[in-house]
Order: sequence, then C-alpha cells, then structure tokens
Amino acid sequence: MRGAKLLVLLVASSLCLYATIAAQETCPADLDAKCGDGAADDWEGEFFPGISKIKYEGPTSKKPLAYKWYNAEEVILGKKMKDWLRFSVAFWHTFRGTGGDPFGAATKAWPWEDGTNSLAMAKRRMKAHFEFMEKLGVDRWCFHDRDIAPDGKTLAETNANLDEIVELAKQLQDETNIKPLWGTAQLFMHPRYMHGAATSPEVKVYAYAAAQVKKALEVTHYLGGENYVFWGGREGYQTLLNTDMKRELEHLANFLQAAVDHKKKIGFNGILLIEPKPQEPTKHQYDWDVATTFSFLQKYGLTGEFKINVECNHATLSGHSCHHELETARINDLLGNIDANTGDPQVGWDTDEFLTDISEATLVMSSVVKNGGLAPGGFNFDAKLRRESTDVEDMFIAHISGMDTMARGLRNVAKLIEDGSLDELVRKRYQSFDSEIGAMIEAGKGDFETLEKKVLEWGEPIVPSGKQELAEMLFQSAL
Amino acid sequence: MRGAKLLVLLVASSLCLYATIAAQETCPADLDAKCGDGAADDWEGEFFPGISKIKYEGPTSKKPLAYKWYNAEEVILGKKMKDWLRFSVAFWHTFRGTGGDPFGAATKAWPWEDGTNSLAMAKRRMKAHFEFMEKLGVDRWCFHDRDIAPDGKTLAETNANLDEIVELAKQLQDETNIKPLWGTAQLFMHPRYMHGAATSPEVKVYAYAAAQVKKALEVTHYLGGENYVFWGGREGYQTLLNTDMKRELEHLANFLQAAVDHKKKIGFNGILLIEPKPQEPTKHQYDWDVATTFSFLQKYGLTGEFKINVECNHATLSGHSCHHELETARINDLLGNIDANTGDPQVGWDTDEFLTDISEATLVMSSVVKNGGLAPGGFNFDAKLRRESTDVEDMFIAHISGMDTMARGLRNVAKLIEDGSLDELVRKRYQSFDSEIGAMIEAGKGDFETLEKKVLEWGEPIVPSGKQELAEMLFQSAL
Amino acid sequence: MRGAKLLVLLVASSLCLYATIAAQETCPADLDAKCGDGAADDWEGEFFPGISKIKYEGPTSKKPLAYKWYNAEEVILGKKMKDWLRFSVAFWHTFRGTGGDPFGAATKAWPWEDGTNSLAMAKRRMKAHFEFMEKLGVDRWCFHDRDIAPDGKTLAETNANLDEIVELAKQLQDETNIKPLWGTAQLFMHPRYMHGAATSPEVKVYAYAAAQVKKALEVTHYLGGENYVFWGGREGYQTLLNTDMKRELEHLANFLQAAVDHKKKIGFNGILLIEPKPQEPTKHQYDWDVATTFSFLQKYGLTGEFKINVECNHATLSGHSCHHELETARINDLLGNIDANTGDPQVGWDTDEFLTDISEATLVMSSVVKNGGLAPGGFNFDAKLRRESTDVEDMFIAHISGMDTMARGLRNVAKLIEDGSLDELVRKRYQSFDSEIGAMIEAGKGDFETLEKKVLEWGEPIVPSGKQELAEMLFQSAL
Amino acid sequence: MRGAKLLVLLVASSLCLYATIAAQETCPADLDAKCGDGAADDWEGEFFPGISKIKYEGPTSKKPLAYKWYNAEEVILGKKMKDWLRFSVAFWHTFRGTGGDPFGAATKAWPWEDGTNSLAMAKRRMKAHFEFMEKLGVDRWCFHDRDIAPDGKTLAETNANLDEIVELAKQLQDETNIKPLWGTAQLFMHPRYMHGAATSPEVKVYAYAAAQVKKALEVTHYLGGENYVFWGGREGYQTLLNTDMKRELEHLANFLQAAVDHKKKIGFNGILLIEPKPQEPTKHQYDWDVATTFSFLQKYGLTGEFKINVECNHATLSGHSCHHELETARINDLLGNIDANTGDPQVGWDTDEFLTDISEATLVMSSVVKNGGLAPGGFNFDAKLRRESTDVEDMFIAHISGMDTMARGLRNVAKLIEDGSLDELVRKRYQSFDSEIGAMIEAGKGDFETLEKKVLEWGEPIVPSGKQELAEMLFQSAL
Repeated sequence: MRGAKLLVLLVASSLCLYATIAAQETCPADLDAKCGDGAADDWEGEFFPGISKIKYEGPTSKKPLAYKWYNAEEVILGKKMKDWLRFSVAFWHTFRGTGGDPFGAATKAWPWEDGTNSLAMAKRRMKAHFEFMEKLGVDRWCFHDRDIAPDGKTLAETNANLDEIVELAKQLQDETNIKPLWGTAQLFMHPRYMHGAATSPEVKVYAYAAAQVKKALEVTHYLGGENYVFWGGREGYQTLLNTDMKRELEHLANFLQAAVDHKKKIGFNGILLIEPKPQEPTKHQYDWDVATTFSFLQKYGLTGEFKINVECNHATLSGHSCHHELETARINDLLGNIDANTGDPQVGWDTDEFLTDISEATLVMSSVVKNGGLAPGGFNFDAKLRRESTDVEDMFIAHISGMDTMARGLRNVAKLIEDGSLDELVRKRYQSFDSEIGAMIEAGKGDFETLEKKVLEWGEPIVPSGKQELAEMLFQSAL
Repeated sequence: MRGAKLLVLLVASSLCLYATIAAQETCPADLDAKCGDGAADDWEGEFFPGISKIKYEGPTSKKPLAYKWYNAEEVILGKKMKDWLRFSVAFWHTFRGTGGDPFGAATKAWPWEDGTNSLAMAKRRMKAHFEFMEKLGVDRWCFHDRDIAPDGKTLAETNANLDEIVELAKQLQDETNIKPLWGTAQLFMHPRYMHGAATSPEVKVYAYAAAQVKKALEVTHYLGGENYVFWGGREGYQTLLNTDMKRELEHLANFLQAAVDHKKKIGFNGILLIEPKPQEPTKHQYDWDVATTFSFLQKYGLTGEFKINVECNHATLSGHSCHHELETARINDLLGNIDANTGDPQVGWDTDEFLTDISEATLVMSSVVKNGGLAPGGFNFDAKLRRESTDVEDMFIAHISGMDTMARGLRNVAKLIEDGSLDELVRKRYQSFDSEIGAMIEAGKGDFETLEKKVLEWGEPIVPSGKQELAEMLFQSAL
Repeated sequence: MRGAKLLVLLVASSLCLYATIAAQETCPADLDAKCGDGAADDWEGEFFPGISKIKYEGPTSKKPLAYKWYNAEEVILGKKMKDWLRFSVAFWHTFRGTGGDPFGAATKAWPWEDGTNSLAMAKRRMKAHFEFMEKLGVDRWCFHDRDIAPDGKTLAETNANLDEIVELAKQLQDETNIKPLWGTAQLFMHPRYMHGAATSPEVKVYAYAAAQVKKALEVTHYLGGENYVFWGGREGYQTLLNTDMKRELEHLANFLQAAVDHKKKIGFNGILLIEPKPQEPTKHQYDWDVATTFSFLQKYGLTGEFKINVECNHATLSGHSCHHELETARINDLLGNIDANTGDPQVGWDTDEFLTDISEATLVMSSVVKNGGLAPGGFNFDAKLRRESTDVEDMFIAHISGMDTMARGLRNVAKLIEDGSLDELVRKRYQSFDSEIGAMIEAGKGDFETLEKKVLEWGEPIVPSGKQELAEMLFQSAL
Repeated sequence: MRGAKLLVLLVASSLCLYATIAAQETCPADLDAKCGDGAADDWEGEFFPGISKIKYEGPTSKKPLAYKWYNAEEVILGKKMKDWLRFSVAFWHTFRGTGGDPFGAATKAWPWEDGTNSLAMAKRRMKAHFEFMEKLGVDRWCFHDRDIAPDGKTLAETNANLDEIVELAKQLQDETNIKPLWGTAQLFMHPRYMHGAATSPEVKVYAYAAAQVKKALEVTHYLGGENYVFWGGREGYQTLLNTDMKRELEHLANFLQAAVDHKKKIGFNGILLIEPKPQEPTKHQYDWDVATTFSFLQKYGLTGEFKINVECNHATLSGHSCHHELETARINDLLGNIDANTGDPQVGWDTDEFLTDISEATLVMSSVVKNGGLAPGGFNFDAKLRRESTDVEDMFIAHISGMDTMARGLRNVAKLIEDGSLDELVRKRYQSFDSEIGAMIEAGKGDFETLEKKVLEWGEPIVPSGKQELAEMLFQSAL
C-alpha cells in the first residue's frame, strides 16, 4: 500500500520539481503529457536562434556575448587554455534548474520546455543542451542519471528510459565531439533516500542505491565519461539522537568498495571522485571536507581508489577557503576535479553562484597549475543562474562570465610565476630546513635529546618576519 | 505572450509545491483533478481515527500522546497557562508542508491528500486541520492566503477560491470556538514576486501585492483574526549591484502606510505585526532583525502602527539570541507575537524546528512574563516536522513536545520569580544609579563638567564583580 | 583598599599591554623607567633611516616601497585622489600594536621602543609617528587619548600627561601640516570599564567616562581634529541574565546628548561619529550595525547630531557586506567616515587586516563616490600588521598596499561611471515607477482600493530578468 | 642583537601577560621583584579563608557554595560519580587568567598575587591552587609548563625554574593525594613560536619546541601525570600565500613521532592526546577537528600512539556539535579526554565558558558512558571566569556550577538508559540490517549485481519515519 503511494509520489514529485512552464500557450495548464510530447515533436531548428558561436574578442570587448579572457587555443604556461581549464556544463543546473527555492516556485520559462517530464521533453532538452555547449565552445558535460531521463514506475522502466536518452546523447556526442567529464547517480531527491542511500537504515534502500549506481557507472562508461562522482547529499544525519553513526559509516565504506569492484568488472577506467560538502541537506554530511573524506578513505582502505572533486562553495561552507581545500587535496594527491562556483561569504547555505571574483580565481588556478592540471578531471560549472535571471541569454552570460574569470585567473598565475617573487618569498622562508640539521629532522631522525643539546648550544632562535603584507602585495599586483 | 506563460506557470507550480501524494491508489499518477475531487467527496469520518483528545497527565507520564507539562487551565503566576501561551497551529507547515527541500522531493503521504491543489482538496484539508486543533486542544490558527485556497487564473478567480474556503473555515470556527491568531498574505512563492512584492522594481507587481494584502486583511478581519502579519520574504536584495535600496525602502514604507489606512478603513482593530528575518531567500532582507525593523518604522513614521513578531530561528540567523530579540522588542514596546521555533546553532539556514530546549524556553518565557503576556498576540508554531518524519502521529508528537517545552519554561520562570535571587542580583547591580547623582544623570542633567568635578573628588571607582557565573547557576537551578 | 589595588593594577597593566621591547640591550629587563627615559633622550636622527619618501611609480613598478596606483595629486572624477581618499594613519595599531594576541605575547621589537610607557617614550613615539606619516605622504592621523599618553595615578595626572604629549603633537603638526582626522577616548581597556563606560551599572564609572570624553573632545578640538569618534567597545552586555538593557540604553543616550552639549559649549564644529560593531569584546554591542545605530539615534532624538564611521571588518562580522553597511549609512545621510580594513570571511573575530582586495575596494569606493566623498571624514587605516610581520619596512608595505588598493578601487569606479552600462542597467530596472501610477505610489497616494482596480484591469504582470550575472560581468570588467 | 632583544622581550612579556595586581598596598607600582618575593615569604595561613570544603547538599540547596548534583561517592550506573567524571582544575585559566582580552587589561586582583612572575610568586600560587582543589574536592589538575614556573634567560635557567616549582607541586601532591590529569608544553605564547613550533619554518624553533616538549614530558611523568596533551595553537597558517603546508605537516608528523619515541624512552606510560581546534590564533590549525586529526594520524602512521582531547568550545567553532566530535572520536577509539567548556552559539571565537547547559551536558555524558568512561583521561575544566567576575568566590561558584552540570548530565543519562525507549528507537531503526542480506552487506559481500537483482525482485522500498521529534521528546523528558 505505502509502496504504491510512494510510487505515485515519485512520479508526481519528479514532475513538480522539474516543472517549469509549457512552451506553447495552447498547452493546457493541467500539464497533459500528450501536449508536451506533441510540442517536442513539433520543435524545429535552433533552440538559441539569436545567439551565434561565442568568440574570443579580448579584454577591450564590451559585448556580453564574447570572451574577453578565455582564448581556448592560446598557450599559457606551456598548455592550451582549454587543456588547463577543461570546462564542463552541468546539465542539472543549466537545463533542469527551475528557479524554485524553499520559499518560491519555479521562475524559468525556457521556450523549449513544455512543463512535463516526458521522454520526448527529455530528448528535446538534450538537444538544446548540445546546441548550448557547441555555441559556448565547451566540449564536456556532467549529469545525474535522473536529470537526463524521467523516472519510470519500476527500476526496470527507469533504466529503460535512461537507456533511451543515453542513446540520443551518444549520437549527439558523436556529432559534436563532446563527452562527459563525469556522470553521477542522483541519490538524494527521491523520498526513498530521505534517510540516506548507502547510509540508509533500510537495507532495501541500500540495495536500491547500489542498483542505481551500478547503472550510472555503466552509462557513464558507455558515453566515454572520464570520471564518475559520488556526492553523498543524504549520507549523513539530521540528529545523532536517532543515528548509529558507526554502522552507517561502515555501510558507506562497503558501498564504495562495491562500486570500485563494479567499475573494474565493467572495465571502466575513469576516476572515481568524492565531492565533499559539510551539511545541507543534512545537519552533518559524512564527507564534510577534504580532510574528513581523506580520513574516511584511509580508515576503510579506500585510498588509491578515489580522488576528490572540490567544490568552492562547499569549501567555504565547511569553514575553509576554497584554496585551502584545493591545497589539502593536492598535497595528498587527491585533487581530481573542481566544481567551479562560489557562495556569498555572509550566507550560510549553498548558493552555487558562478565564480566571478578574480582574486579567488587566481588562487584556484594556482593550485591547478601546481597540480600540473586536472586531467582527466576538469572544471564543472556547478553553478546556476540566480532565480531572478530568466532570459535565455542569461544562461550564456553566466557561463561566459565564469569561464572568463577562470581564464583570467590562469593568466594571473602565469604572471606570478614569471615574476617569481612570491615563490621566492616562500622558498626563503623554509630555507633553514635545507641545512644539515633540517635534513636530519625531515628524515625523521631528529630525536629530542639531540635537539635539546643543539638548543642549549644555540640559544634563543632568531625568527624573521612572515612578510604576509608583502606576499599580499605581490599577489594583488598580478591581478 | 510572456504573461500568458507565467499564468500557466503559476498554476503548475502551485500544484507542484504543494504536491504530496494521492490518497487513493486508484488516483492516476497524472494528478487528474477530477480524481482528487472525487476522493474529497468520498471522505467520511475522522482524519485522525486512532488519536483521541490529548490530555494532561503530568511529568511522570511516559505516553508520547499526552501533555506532561502543559495543563491548559492550571493557573501559573496569576493566569491560566493557556492564557499565557495562547498557542496557535500554523496551517502552512502543518498541512501544506510536503517534506520537500532544495535537494529532495516531497516525503509526506498524508492519507487525506490526493495530490491535487483543488478546491475540494482545500476543503478536506481544512477539515483535517480543525480536527487536528481540537484533538490537540489548541484554539488558534495562522494562515497565508495561498495556503488555504488555490490560485485561480485571475486575481478575481483566486479571490473567489479564497472566499469559498474562508466560508468553510468560518463555519468550522463557529463549531469549535477556534479563531485565527493571525492571517497573512503569501507574497514570496509566486514568481511574480521574485524581485520583491512591495519592493519589486515593477510597479504592477507592487500593485498586485497591494491587492493581495487588501484581500488578506479583509479575510483575516472576517474570520475574527486578532493580528495580521507581514513577513517580507522577498523584500530585500540579492545583490546591491542591480538594486536601488533607497527607492525600494521608500516603496515599502508607502505600502505599509497604505495597509494601515486600509485596516482602519475596514474597521479591523487587530495588531499589524512585522516578522523580521535577516536573509533567505534573499541575500539581505529589509527587516533583518528587531532593531533594523524599529529603525525603519521610526524613519518612515510608522511607529505606533506596528508591533513585531519575533521568530526564534530568525533571531539566531541574524546573529542574536532569541532572548535578545525578544528583549529588544519588549523594551521598545514592540513585542506582539512569537513564532516559537528553533534552529540548529551550527546550521546557516532556517530549519524551523519545534523548540524543545528547556533552557531556551525558560528565557523566552521570562520575556513573555515581563511583557505581561502577549495578548492579543500569542505563540505560533512556525515549525515543521523534519522531512523524514512521515507518520501522522509525528504531527501530534511534535506539537505536544513544543507545547510542553514552552509550558515547562513558564513553570521555570515562576520558580525563578518565586525564588527572587536572580532579580535581586540584577537590581543590586544598578543600585548606584538610584543615588542622587544617578537620578540626575537619568534625568538627562548630568553634564560633563559637573561629572568631571565629581570624578576629581571621588578618585578611582570601585567596580564590583558582574557575578555572571552566579546568575547562570541561579538560572540553571530553576530548570 | 580595593580602589588602591586597582590603581596599582592600572599602572601595571598599562605598562604591560603596551610593552614591546627595550631598544637598547643595556636596558634592564625590569623595565626601569629611568632607562627608558634615558634612551629617549639619547635618540638622534631618523626613526626610519633606510626609507625615503614613498613615491608614485605607476602599475609597472616592482618596488614594494612605491605607489603603483595612488597618485595623490592626480585628478579622478573631478577631484584629486588625495581629496577623495583623505587617508589617515591610526596611531593605535601602527605605533602601539605589540603583536600580542589572546594566546601570545608581543612580537614587535621596534628600535625606538624601550619597553616603558613613560612620557619620554610617548614623545619619542610621537616623533616616529610623524616621520612615518611624512614619508608615507599621509596628512591625517587618528588617536585614542590613552594611546598617545600614559595614564597617571589620578585623572588630573593623566590629563596632565595627555596635555604634555598633545603639546608636542601640536608642534609636530605645525611643522608638517598634518592634522587629526579624528580623536577618540579609549573607554574599553582600563578595568574600570569592564562592565561598560556610559553603560556601566556603576554611576562613578559613568562619571569617569564623561570626564574622559570631555577631555578627549577638548584635545581633539585643540589639535584641529575634523571629527570625533565613539566606539563603544564595552557598551553592551555579556549576558542578559545580569543586565538591564533598557536602563543601559537610556544611560548611553543621555551620555551622548551630554557629549553633544559639551561639543557645542567648547565651540567644536567637528562631526561626531559612532562606529558600529556587533560584538567582541562583548557578546552584544549596542551599536551592532548601521541600522541598529540609526534606530538608537532616532529613538533618543539624536539624529542630526551624529554620523557613522563604517568599519569594513565590523560590517562583515555583523553579517553584512561592507558595501551594505556603507549604502545603509549613505542613503540615510549618515556616512561620515570609513575605517578601511578587512577580515577573513571564514574567521569570526576582528582581524583588522589591511584591505587588499580590489573588488571590495571598488565597491567601497562606489559608495564613497555616490556620497560625493567623505569630507570632513576620510579613510582611517584601522588595520594592523599581522603578528608575524616584525620588520620596520612591513609598516610601510602594509600602508602602501592598503592605499594602493583603495586608489585602484577609485580608478575602477571612474571606469564604471565612464562606461555607464551598470548605472543604466539599474536605472532601467526601476523605470516602471517613473510612470504616472508609479509617481502616485511614490507620493504616498497609492491606496489599496485604487491599486486593486488597476490589477483587475492589467492582469498578470510581466516581470523581467534581474540580470545579476550581467551586472557582475560589467562590474568585474572594470577591475 | 635581535636575539638579545627578543630575550628581553620574553621576560617583559611574561611579566605582562601574567600581571595582575600587587597583593599588598605596600608593594610599589613598579613591580619590584623583591617586593613580590618578600610578600610571598610573608604569606601565612589560608588563601581562601572564608570558604570551607564544598559539600553535597542535594538539589534543594540554595547555597551557591554547595553541590546540588555532584555527590562524589554516589554510585551511578555502576561507578562512583567521581570515577565517571574525574574532574580536573586547569591551572592556566584558574590561577593565571588575568581577565585581559584583546581590548582590555587585566581585571583580577587576587589577594595572593603581587604583580610579579617571580619564583616566589609561582610557589605561593601553587599553594593557593592546592588549597583550592582540596576545598573543591577535585583531585586532578592540568598545567602548561610555562604557567607554573617563570621563564629564565636561557633554556637551562627556565628548566631549573620549572624543576623548583615541580618539586613543590610534588610535595603538595603527596600531602593531598592530588595528581596531574595531564601536563602540556606551552608552545604558543612566546614570540619565538609566532610562526608555529613544530611547524615553524625556522629549524631552530623546531628544535626549541622539541627541547621544551622533552622536558614537559619528563616533568609530567615525574609528577605521576596520566596523560600528556598537544594543543597546536600555532601549528597552522595565517595565509597560504607564504606557507608550504605539505612541508609543515611532515615536520609536525616527525615531531610527534619523536615525542612518542621519547615517551617510551623515559618509560612514561601515560596517554598522548591531541586537542583539535579549528582556528584562533591562526587562520587555520592543522588539527582542525577530530576527523582532520584522525586523517593526519593515519597518513603519518601515528594511529595507536595518540588519542584525542575533545574540547566542546573548539567543536562548535569547527562547525560541529560537541556531541558530534565526541562520537566521532569514540567510534574511532580515539576519545581520551574532554575539555569541558562551552562557547556562545552566536560568537565566533573561543570563549571558554563553564558549561552550564543541562541538555548539552547530558549529550556529553551519553558519549562518555558509551565509551565506558574516560579513564585514564577525565574532564578538564578548560574554562575561565568571565572577565567581569572578580570575586574570589566566583572561582568556586564557576567550578561548582560546571561540576554540578556534568553530574546532572550523568544522572540524566542514567534515567535515559533505565527507561530504554531512546536506545530501542535507535536499535529498531537499523534492524533491517540484522537480516541475511543485511549481514551480507555488512560483511562486505554485497556486490552490485546481486543487489540489483534483489531490487528488481523487491520493488520500491518502504521507508519508515525517522521519528526525530519522538527521539527529542524522549531525550528532553529525561532532563
């Protein structure tokens, strides 16, 4: 009984969360699926008729629909910009974002949407997505399984829906030479996952999540995805009062190990990535930040099988700068991908804004350059239009702005490296450890007795200035 | 063209945000309105058949469905508990909350819901609501206009829908002796209000909001509401880059003045209340906290016409304790109502949880007692079940828990007052101002020259201990 | 008895909080005042011998000790840069900052300091300060009374000390054409103010604060100060459990009124400024933010007598952007001065860093330009060297970096204004209010009945995109 | 030259940070060390003459100086309260706290202090400390090396000072049967540590820290300490711009390994504890929270050698509840000790308040009971009097209040366990994993193919309510 109700709920809520608006005035308000389908069949020609391929025009351009800093083929620090940046469009935000928020209904009325979540609508949307990427000049995309294809009444039906859309995506990929940066399974929106997916107290939910990830891995592999992401939106707790945290973490570890096993079984060589987030929707998520995730991977013997997808807005919500999270991942050989977005420093929830701050972008790119790039990972724009941005051109403006900002960051890093002063400042700070005694300590041979003798011999150490203001001056000068 | 689309959107999204689940398996997944209506007509008997009227059983009771501390008729500090507490059920959270969140679909599958937002469904829901209140023993309720009745295709149709439901509510009120604590207009969910209502840059939106508040005031008056609330969820900005804050604030002031005028015109004597909130959904809301709201009221000559509805979770999000906001309102003669809820101290968004912390409840009640009670205001439970709480009995458990907590707070305040030590500690701290020179200063006659002479005569002042630890000990001892 | 002890404490702790380091190895560790004085007498020549006057060299300069963006005499937007920016050095941070923090001792060992707080030391320090300003090319300074001169054993003695130093400052001012931007009284460091100054529960402390402000006003007037600042560091509470907030606020209002009266009496025409801060050192400060301060001024009839000194780091700690606080002050005609500094967005206390973020500086300067400048206020660098920055040249680098950043912000604002696109975007957003009905509403004549009629006539409003991403793109393009 | 200056600075600033007030009016204001010493020798009799041994009087007692809930010998859940709670007085806060804060001078004028940091003063203070513990009925204490004995001019002299005081402490310990819960080295206050101790870029500072920890380990061992704590107050960074985080972390790991080696060498069997803190004084500390610390220990092969000292105020500053940090430590077998204190939920820095919240104390004690107690760890009161609490009796009131609160928490946990409902609620939530398929998954044998087959067989899972509100009701009922 209850199961049957939840099935209905599933269909209803999928419809609702995605609901935008009928593209045709003739489409009745009751969201008749037939109408939607018919509309899809009728669609002819371009989705973005007024917009041509976005070109690089340089910093003096005043055109919103032109790149001022991102010049894909230009070589910076020995690599083409497009190879440093490896941009990807997030299908979710860009084509399924409705503008709804906890206090408000959908605001987007994209002309190609008919208000349904039908297969036909899913296909039309996928075509719009590829046109968008081509015009933007981005050749990677990211998706959740449930963004691109509607739920069916059973898992089998859902998988069949997914296969149908994936086939279309494959064909569009072949025509455009665009590929997935990564795929992922949406394990958070459906009510069955309300207590978690791999960490649900219900064994059947765990199994359902396993089946869903199995399929998503296979689909990502089929489409030539280079990575696969786990974002554990519901893997956490709302209150410790009703939670067995130890048991949940063990379940999560077993789940991830099974994903590794399945990946190998199907011959998928892509990177598995975990995307930390501190909280929201849960009070506490198990992959709080990079360090917490690394701790988990180590405890459960999963190191080496996973890298990390750092999202800037998640970083700041966890109390760290994005630069901190990137560096923590990098020095532990875990930096695999970046969800390039930003939040508002005074706001306590995930706003997923396009990153337009030049200073922040320069810090981000400095980690990327130190990492030798991100490949096979890249930059996913896990960023959405503001709820109030309802023009089709806003989709382009937002992406151009985000891409230009990262490109400008890369150019600034090149300036910093060329100048060399900041690197030299850091090198000098640590040079006392390049001494004999320093080498001994770094080799793990600096026992306390030996060091105490040295101190008694040396007396009070001289401690130089940290030169933070100079470092900041050098950094800002490159912007 | 665009307007027509938005109209469709309105209907679609209302449907969606409220979507819960069909009550009947036979109700098709496409949410056929007829099915819903049919189900409504078929409904017989109780909505909460297994639950009888909740009784007071005292602190030793182990029953979840019993009051342990709230004894409505018991006299505490010279007044019945029910008169101190004046509890109200929020129709919104309790009967329209779906369990949806920014990352997840609806989870509630209440048996009386049919997945529609039809008029018939609205009526059935209203009946469930009154049965709920009667069983709980609460005789006040709060509502947004759009919670209780569906949007129509035009304002006229929407108003007609509202009138129909209001008529039913009136009848149910008469049968039960339950009345609105307050009504309010929902000026945040519809996409037309995405840039604000009274502060929208679009003059037609301002007008629409005016028309909607006009009707909501009239309806509240008709139902015998004792107060009317303004929560400006969209009255603020997302970025200053595109905002003329001065002009928006002036519009808001003019809007509120027009509301005052209309209230008087229709003979409504209820209190107008503003409910501060710092942010969410906007980056900044114009009624950030009590002090900001008071500043606004003073600047625009609105003092005397408005009181404040303090919400505890909004208080903490603004960086203040709830107690601070209550006291700031109280000492400025602005404390009119309390939205009794709480948030998580480590979480940066509005979680609207039922307040179950005894210490916090005691602080809240100490302000209420100092205020001589809240009447004609009261306590609204602007709190919702957790998304994962999906049993019908959870609705009762949550309210009982919230009511018992406030009742326990009241009992603790009575103990503190009876004991007297804490009040005496405070009185003594300030007694030096009960001197002649203190009186002179308090009368505004302490000029600097006179005081300087005194200082030269007195020498260094003696400054006693603040006794914070003792105050905390006295406070905790009453819990 | 206790009073006598506190007197000793006063001397001891003044000594300690200011303690830096003996300038001469021969100065014994017990901080013998004679040694210090002797050292002062011995001092010859320059305090910053290796540093010449800082010059503007333009953006291509690589020299840390040169201006790249601040060109004092260059005209931008019709005014010289120095007249837009009106920079001031904070005596407190720059010459009394020791590098101590709650977990660590002083770190600065400036060569001119002798480890004492003697009058001779105070004089030497003042001379170093003027040399510093001259070399930097800044012609304004800010001070607390107790920074510049040591406490004596009685108020009379303390005032005499102050007079002696003020006389020296006056002489140095005359020689250099440097003047105070503002003076202020330090009402937070001495233990007598632990419960507040004007809001202390002890009437004798209130009187002491009055006497101290009286003198500080007179001294500021004597030195030709253009403003006088109130920062109520202890005017607030640690816990409401022991606090009579209403009585404290009334005392504060009476205190400020008495300050206004005294200002007029002595013929001081400078602006009185309040500097909001949300908390730290107290749990809650009464001048939390601009809106709270404005509310207070209105309630107690003090509007018109005070303007506001907005500090960026205080703004962000109160949950607002600095730009928000500046705009809130500006549109209420309260923007009088800016304490140009910044905090760390992930850090919850006042770090008082030099602002080096170009984007932030551009927002700040946009408010300043809209305000027509800040005169007679200006920019005070309420910013300090990091604890770990211990080279004398760091003092210069930090100020140059901060000045260049503000200058760059001003240049960016000029670009934005010249381009005009962003202003035009905002103007257009509100143009529907330039209609007849808009004018009616803005004139306060838009009654609800009239507007309802209009809505019924108009139907659903069209709501355009907010264009936030475009606004951000236009803004960033100017950087 | 510079080294010599820093030496002077060391002496001066130690003096200053500890400066309180001369105990005798006859002690001159210039803090003559001789006077201090003389005063110390003269001291006769009790330090707390008006206060007798604190007794348990039960919950009805109104006396501030009596225990209402802590009854040391009473058996709760099979153990004496004193054995569950193992309270310790922190020498640092209780006897070296001056009331100074970043904006204010010392406020405490304890009668036994003479304003010096002499050896004689250190002895007198140690005697007061033991009298305090005896009267309180606490038989453990915690200390930093530099709290208890003054710095000398060289490490040798400093160590000699320390030995002298340790000898006295040993004697007082023998007389009273009081022992150290733990000792620790203060590696954050001295300016030499401004860039870190084990993570300083200066090799000589690393060595100095090694020598200091060596001595502190030896002294703790000598005094019979049961644990030794590392709090890395300066082990972190202020800005990544000048930091080589990887190299610093490696240094830290080598340092801790050397500490393990030295511990074993000297035969010290106490537990080594790391005390996480997110930030303050640094922007980022390397032991941010429990998970970060565990990650570090795993990466560098230090697991098994260290446990964690969880401090509640540090927990909340890191974005977690204290309960979360305790549980994270517990389930990873890392919970070794608790620094029982609390912060203000709206305040962003470490306030180190005594924990008086009953609800919080009950959560803390539930982790302790699940952990089977904390021995050989315990509860250290890393909490201080408010700056404004200046009566000697406040020292007692604060500790009694903190002890009573934890005792009340323990009593509540006993009630919860006896009632059993909350445990049962949790057990039931996970019972689906007690099935065959659940066991398979928990054994790491739930491969995705098998689970997918199961899902296709089972259909949509039933997901029960999370019962959070019921859990909260059950929890609050025990308070």
